[in-house]
Formats: sequence, structure tokens, C-alpha cells
Amino acid sequence: MKKDLIQELAVTSDSKIVLVVFDGLGGLPRNPGDKTELETAYTPNLDALAVRSVCGLADPVSMGITPGSGPAHLSLFGYDPVQYQIGRGILSALGVDFTLQHSDVAARANFATIDAKGNVIDRRAGRIPTEKNRQLCELLSRIEIPGVEIFVRTEKEHRAAIVFRGPGLSGRLSDTDPQKVGVPALKVEPLEDEARQTAELVNQFVEQARAILSCEKQANMILLRGFDKYEALPGYAQRYRLNAAAIANYPMYRGVARLLGMTILSTGDTIHSEFETLAQHYRDYDFFFLHIKKTDSMGEDGNFEGKVNIIEEADRCFPVLMNLQPDVVIVTGDHSTPAVLKAHSWHPNPVLLYSKFCRPDQVKTFSESECRQGGLGRFPAVNLMPLMMANALKLSKYGA
Amino acid sequence: MKKDLIQELAVTSDSKIVLVVFDGLGGLPRNPGDKTELETAYTPNLDALAVRSVCGLADPVSMGITPGSGPAHLSLFGYDPVQYQIGRGILSALGVDFTLQHSDVAARANFATIDAKGNVIDRRAGRIPTEKNRQLCELLSRIEIPGVEIFVRTEKEHRAAIVFRGPGLSGRLSDTDPQKVGVPALKVEPLEDEARQTAELVNQFVEQARAILSCEKQANMILLRGFDKYEALPGYAQRYRLNAAAIANYPMYRGVARLLGMTILSTGDTIHSEFETLAQHYRDYDFFFLHIKKTDSMGEDGNFEGKVNIIEEADRCFPVLMNLQPDVVIVTGDHSTPAVLKAHSWHPNPVLLYSKFCRPDQVKTFSESECRQGGLGRFPAVNLMPLMMANALKLSKYGA
Repeated sequence: MKKDLIQELAVTSDSKIVLVVFDGLGGLPRNPGDKTELETAYTPNLDALAVRSVCGLADPVSMGITPGSGPAHLSLFGYDPVQYQIGRGILSALGVDFTLQHSDVAARANFATIDAKGNVIDRRAGRIPTEKNRQLCELLSRIEIPGVEIFVRTEKEHRAAIVFRGPGLSGRLSDTDPQKVGVPALKVEPLEDEARQTAELVNQFVEQARAILSCEKQANMILLRGFDKYEALPGYAQRYRLNAAAIANYPMYRGVARLLGMTILSTGDTIHSEFETLAQHYRDYDFFFLHIKKTDSMGEDGNFEGKVNIIEEADRCFPVLMNLQPDVVIVTGDHSTPAVLKAHSWHPNPVLLYSKFCRPDQVKTFSESECRQGGLGRFPAVNLMPLMMANALKLSKYGA
Repeated sequence: MKKDLIQELAVTSDSKIVLVVFDGLGGLPRNPGDKTELETAYTPNLDALAVRSVCGLADPVSMGITPGSGPAHLSLFGYDPVQYQIGRGILSALGVDFTLQHSDVAARANFATIDAKGNVIDRRAGRIPTEKNRQLCELLSRIEIPGVEIFVRTEKEHRAAIVFRGPGLSGRLSDTDPQKVGVPALKVEPLEDEARQTAELVNQFVEQARAILSCEKQANMILLRGFDKYEALPGYAQRYRLNAAAIANYPMYRGVARLLGMTILSTGDTIHSEFETLAQHYRDYDFFFLHIKKTDSMGEDGNFEGKVNIIEEADRCFPVLMNLQPDVVIVTGDHSTPAVLKAHSWHPNPVLLYSKFCRPDQVKTFSESECRQGGLGRFPAVNLMPLMMANALKLSKYGA
């Protein structure tokens, strides 16, 4: 879908769209012939909705590609993640409510533990408490390097966001995070000629940070990755004429939503509180993105039963949503996170699209195996936004 | 499919392809759990053909996009409708057998009714008889504006085509049709600097037309839309090496076919007469496009039973086609027109492709729900022409 075509066809209307994303929804059976996490879960509400819906399997990027959360969400939001590449650093900065300015360069930071030889022994510094993180970020914020303004912001536990602001900065920089233990942190390298000066500034920052942190037992080092320069995207209002709101209790997802101009609604820590937030604000927006994080966390932890439980917990919240009588409901994942892999994977996600005009198929339960037989077939997730818009009667005819 | 790739691979052979297009074929059930128009229709001949065919669901443009008839047919003919954008005016002019010249600018015209204040009160002038239209077009043809030749041609009922010919004309002009009643007709505005002079000429034409029509009760105004400048496309002979013929009893569809160099066969008003025309000319061409209009008209009118009846009427004609023993037969729609929506829609169309080499699937009846399970899966309609060519053994191998 050409980006300008959908922008050209989008019209406003009273209908409302709710996109529910179970992070890392797709799964795998533990043994051949067994069921996936979603197939194991008891999900009477999702199954009832599937009967009234058209279903399918969506590839987050393209067949075989395992995406990170950023590209996976861009795809769900209708932005081709190969065309729109956004660094982890940008997403982290947006996720901590930092107001990025054009040309800011941001990186994702982990507090880490190094040994006496300088080798990384824990890439997450034992997941230090968020409060400790705040104290350390406060210290690192005092670092001064001529020619650049530096912002250090706490994300959660061992995670932080760092933003460099100044003239002539480049975002084309290599990571310092070696992505494994037993080796030292890497130096930042410029990935283009214009990035040399920025690389130097960042390396100076890391050196000073290491000095400041040297008396810490756990968080005695900082690792940087996902450098990127901020450039604004055409947002939901411009591209889809939607007044969109996001409900997410993890910063990264609020960050992506904010990048596209969605209003971030404050919400509680539970899935149920997210659905309650939806109900409270239902009159004020025409598009809602509701993000459920813990399916992914459980998958990453290899906790099959935990992931099943989260899916069941979310299923119990669906009456709150359906009582609002939304015009279009989509339920899917951003990517798969099978517990057996303890990681994101390339498998397509089950998709359910409900609307009065969806042309329902024969799918009776919301699962990987049934969605495979659904009317949407297997398709790239980037097509979901045009489908949602069409089902909400928010797209005009193309050509005469 | 890259246009130059298929052109490079196309070879001639004795085999014959028949593409039968039911306009607006795809539908929706009237109530949840009910059947669509096609599923309701009794179609023993199409079902028997489906058993010997490979089936699937085709998206006219891409998922979620509702196309007009022009782009939808270009797609069926193998021309990406986002790449090849053709204005309604060009299609209308081609549809009335007007021989366009390179750089002609054409518009679709509606006779309309305005009140004493100049506000449009009927965008179709009560659908005046075609004979009345002819008289009015005759009058408007007498308008003379220096620097431009003007052709006014009757299409049908309230519809006409207007062609402007002259040096330096631009097709980048806004519509005068306000697309609603209770407001005045709009002035033509140039959409690029080079279009200023053309806009002025067209506005002069409209003013004179209004004066001429002022004594009419119903058709006292003319509304213009879909301006476009004619540029020839690579046609069927050049691109596919096909000697193609079109059988269509509505002008617009003859227009698209003529645009691609198909020979237009004159035919009768009934579906049966179209199939008879096919039989008469079967020896003379190797590709036939047979267009059935009334499925769409019934859908647009919200007439579910009427659409069912048209499908059944067409089904009864299929023995005429199959007795010719064609090598490849395709049956599909250009877009969906569900009676419940009374409009074109974004839903994919059922597709049936018969050939000796089609690798039949398990589909036993020609319907949206069964085609969903077919061997072609869900795919963009622009892929159909290469599939037809391949099944007719008219495409050579790509690469060594």
C-alpha cells in the first residue's frame, strides 16, 4: 500500500476501531502434536468473537523475519517497517516521555556489571531496582561534554534512555553492548564518515560514566545500543484522519504510539485496568491501541503456563470491550514469542477482525491452527490498518 | 509482476483464454450466519467447473482498498492500478467509441438539475432518457471556444463524455461535480500551474452550456468530473502477444478494453447474447473478455435477490462457453458489491481458474467461503493475467 494512497482515501466518520495487541501472542507446542499457548488457554470470549469475525495469519514483516517490538508495532500501525526504520534509542526516549527534538540522537542504555578486567559479567546489572537506576541517571546527567547537551533518563530496572543534542550529530553509530558476557564493552564506531565526531563525543561520555559508576557493585558500567537520529513520521491524524489513543503500561509501546501522534492515556498495571481505561475514554477517540505486555514477558521467560494464564486473564476482560459495541475490533500479536524458544520468533500471528461487514469465515476458536483457515489468509501485518479502516467505512473508493 | 518481465516471457500459441467478469461479484450475507448472493444462487454449471478448477480469493488492488471499476479492471487485465492511473473521463470517452488522440483531455459529464438559486437538486437530472441526452449533446456540441476543439458524446441516460483537444491542454483539473445536492456546482480549478489556461477554457464551456440548457426543466446543468489526459498504454498485443476481443454491453468496460487494444465485438443486451457473441467469434481471437454488468447494478441497488437471479442467469449460459472447449477459463469479479452495502467494497472476489494443467483443489462449489480454501489462496488480482498466460502455455521460462 503506497503511503500517499491511503492518506488520499482516508475519511472521518463516527465509527470506532479498537486494536488489541497481545505482545508476543503467537506460540509453539511444547511437543509435536501438542497445543500452542493460545490453543491451550481457555478463551470463551475470544472464541465467541472469532465466530463473528474474519480471521487469518499475519507475518509481522515478511516470512521468516523475526522482528523487534519497534518494527513489529510499526507494521501493525500500517507503516512498512523496512521503509520506516526507527532505532531502539528513539523508541526508548519516547517511552520515558522525553520530548525529542528534530535531529536529536538517542540510544538505549543498560546498566551492567563488569569485572576487574573490564569484562561484562551481567548485561543487566542484576536488574537493579528502578529507584537505584534513578539515582545513577541523576549522577550521569551531570556529565558535561563541550558541543553537546546530554539527557539521561530512567526507563525501568536496568534500562535507561540517553539523548544527545547538538549541531551536526549523526545517528549512524555502532553499539557498545557486546550482547554477550565474558568480553569487554565495545567502543562506539562511526558507521559513516559524518559520524566520527559524534562517536568521539559518545565515547567520552561512556568513559566518564564508567568513572562515575566505578564505585558501584552491580551497576558499574553502562552499555549503549540502538543509536538513531529522530525524524518525525506522518502520524495517525495526518495519514488516517484518526484521533487515536494508546493504552499501554510499558514505556516502549507508549513511545511508538507517541511517535505517531497518539494520545497516551494513563492506566494501571493490570490488564483489567487497561480495559477500564478504554471504557472511560471510549467517547473521546475513534481509534484505540490497547497493549498487553505480559504474554511476551512470559514467552521470553520460557513460562508456557504463565503465558497461558495471561491470555486467559485478558480473555476475561473482553466483555468490558464488547459492551462498548465498537464498530471494528482487531485482536492479534505484534510478533510471536513461543515459550519453547524463550525469544521473539518469525511465526505469523493469529488475527481476528470483527466488524458488521467483515464477511465471517468458518473459524470457531481463536488459535494459530484455526486462523490458518481464515478468510484473511496469510498476509503481511502492514495490511491490517487499511483493513481496519475499510471495515470502519473510513476509506473512500479508489478511482472511478 | 514487472511489466517488462511478462512482456519478455510472452509467446504466442493456439490456445484460447476466456475471462468472464461478473461485475461486483463478491458479496456479504444479509445477517450473521447467512449466505452471500453467490452462495445463495443455484449455480450447477459454475460448481461443476469449480470441481475441475483451482480456486482462490483475489484482492482487486490490495487488502482494504475499495476500487472503482476502472482500476479494478486494469488489475484483472494485469496492469497494477496504482501504477497505471486512468481518469474516469478517459474511460468514459473510450466507452462511447470516441477515438482519443494523444494529449486529448476528457471528462465524465452528468446532466443535472439545479434550482433557481443555482443549487444542485438532482445530480442525475432524473436519469433523463438516452434520446433526450442525445439532443442535448447535439446542442452542446455547437459551443465554440477559441483554441480548443470540443466533443460532446452521449453515454447513457444522464451520462456523457466530453473531450477537449488542442495544444498545451492539461488534465490536472478539479471536478465541478460537488458530489452532493443543496450546493452549487463548483468551478474547475487548475491542480498545477500548467492547467490554468485549460481550467479557463473548461469554465467558459460550462458557462455556455448552462446558458444553452437554461430552458430545460430537468437537465438544466452539466457537471464534470474525472478530468484526465490521454496517454496510450502498452496493450495486449504488445505486452501479452494476445489477439484479444471484448464482449461488454456497458460502455465503460468496452472503454477499458479498447484502451488495451482489444477488439470490441458488438453484442446484445442480454447475458445470453454475450455468450452467443463469444461462440460466433471464437475462432478469430485467442483471448476473450466477457463482462456481466448487472450483478454490480443489483448490488448497488441493494437488491440481494436480483443479484442472485443475475448470477443464476449467467450460470445457465456456461454450457455455451464450455462447449467451445476453451483451454483456460477464469471466472471472477472486478470488485465486490454486496447488496447490504449498496456500494463497491474492499472484500476479495472468488476466483475460479480452469485449465488442463491447473492442479485442481478440493473446492466443490463456486462461492466466497469455498474459494477461501482454494489452491490459489488469497492474492492480488493483478497476478491473474500471468496465471492465465501460464495455464495457456503462453509464458516461456524465466532465466536459464
